[in-house]
Amino acid sequence: MIHAASLIHDDMPCMDDDALRRGRPSNHVAFGEPTALLAGDALLALAFEHVARGCAAAGVPADRALRAVMELGRAAGTGGVTAGQVADMEGEGDPSVGLAALEYIHAHKTARLVEAAAVSGAVVRGAGDAEAERVRRYAHFLGLLLQVVDDVLDVTATSEQLGKTAGKDAAAGKATYPWLLGLDGARAYAGELLAKAEAELDGFDAARAAPLRQLARFMAHRQH
Amino acid sequence: MIHAASLIHDDMPCMDDDALRRGRPSNHVAFGEPTALLAGDALLALAFEHVARGCAAAGVPADRALRAVMELGRAAGTGGVTAGQVADMEGEGDPSVGLAALEYIHAHKTARLVEAAAVSGAVVRGAGDAEAERVRRYAHFLGLLLQVVDDVLDVTATSEQLGKTAGKDAAAGKATYPWLLGLDGARAYAGELLAKAEAELDGFDAARAAPLRQLARFMAHRQH
Repeated sequence: MIHAASLIHDDMPCMDDDALRRGRPSNHVAFGEPTALLAGDALLALAFEHVARGCAAAGVPADRALRAVMELGRAAGTGGVTAGQVADMEGEGDPSVGLAALEYIHAHKTARLVEAAAVSGAVVRGAGDAEAERVRRYAHFLGLLLQVVDDVLDVTATSEQLGKTAGKDAAAGKATYPWLLGLDGARAYAGELLAKAEAELDGFDAARAAPLRQLARFMAHRQH
Repeated sequence: MIHAASLIHDDMPCMDDDALRRGRPSNHVAFGEPTALLAGDALLALAFEHVARGCAAAGVPADRALRAVMELGRAAGTGGVTAGQVADMEGEGDPSVGLAALEYIHAHKTARLVEAAAVSGAVVRGAGDAEAERVRRYAHFLGLLLQVVDDVLDVTATSEQLGKTAGKDAAAGKATYPWLLGLDGARAYAGELLAKAEAELDGFDAARAAPLRQLARFMAHRQH
């Protein structure tokens, strides 16, 4: 819900002004700007209500549920998505933005929310601090990987394959990983992030960690 | 924070398009639309993080804190503010909206959030269900009172007194309490709501309930 809210708001005319999302008209194109604005707000609020209500209904101890709320709140706000979007906006049209600034943007805008989802899931299931931090590092690399592959696909895939407007970053003069590292360099970096994410899983039981390993590999090799 | 977020988003060009708020340029006028959109999102997320973190730091039992998160999440989203704003938007420019529809709008857009704040405060301090529901009814009448007085002042006060654009509802062809009940009728209704709010407080210790009584009276008699 938090991710969907950020996409709906991100597509609005005053932000990225994108008419296409997941192969369909974006929210404000289909339902108008006021509805898109309110839908994003409603999804944000609903996300927190859902965690609190869902945890209570499932008998999750309240202190764990509360940690999930904190984690998600921080990731959705100034400690994550919003911070990344502000930095992204400020760097817009400035391809001279360096690798450090680009990493800041994606670590906050994307990876932080993936971390929060993973850590919340772990904490709710009773993970200790050390385990939760290992899950966080895995999710951090996974989140950056997601973005590097996104940047590569923005160059190499079609709008039809992506379900959103391709080639948009280059047209907007945005700094991207292929822009800063070259296409081969970006692909090599994706491989490096995949290896780092997988390495964090080595400490867990192999069979139970298998789905997380598959998720990371899927993220690295997806074509859309 | 939830209230501020809703005001920031409400003032944006695609919503009420209001350039003045609390006597100063509204957020998007001062900082631009993208920042206003993100500031509202960040405040929404921060609100939930704040409740979770603040309660944990203050030693509030986690199950009470979680109930506050649920209450606020529901009030900020489709169970409250957002539902009211959608209904408000649909009624815009249609002064034939009846009293029932107007009550729906304000019960959700305004009163529901006042209720959530009051009930959260009560629950966090250990109120039982019956007490919390009495606090909710008090806050419900208080929230409607706030709106009726707002509508009256929109007609009778100046922009300078209000710190926001006066006469805006009439100009927008919005249904308001003075429109539906007349100015005297709206004032009489405000008096009725004040009496109902105060009546809910009769069940509480008089000295401890005094601030809530004063708050209701202030809300009824304020000039700005």
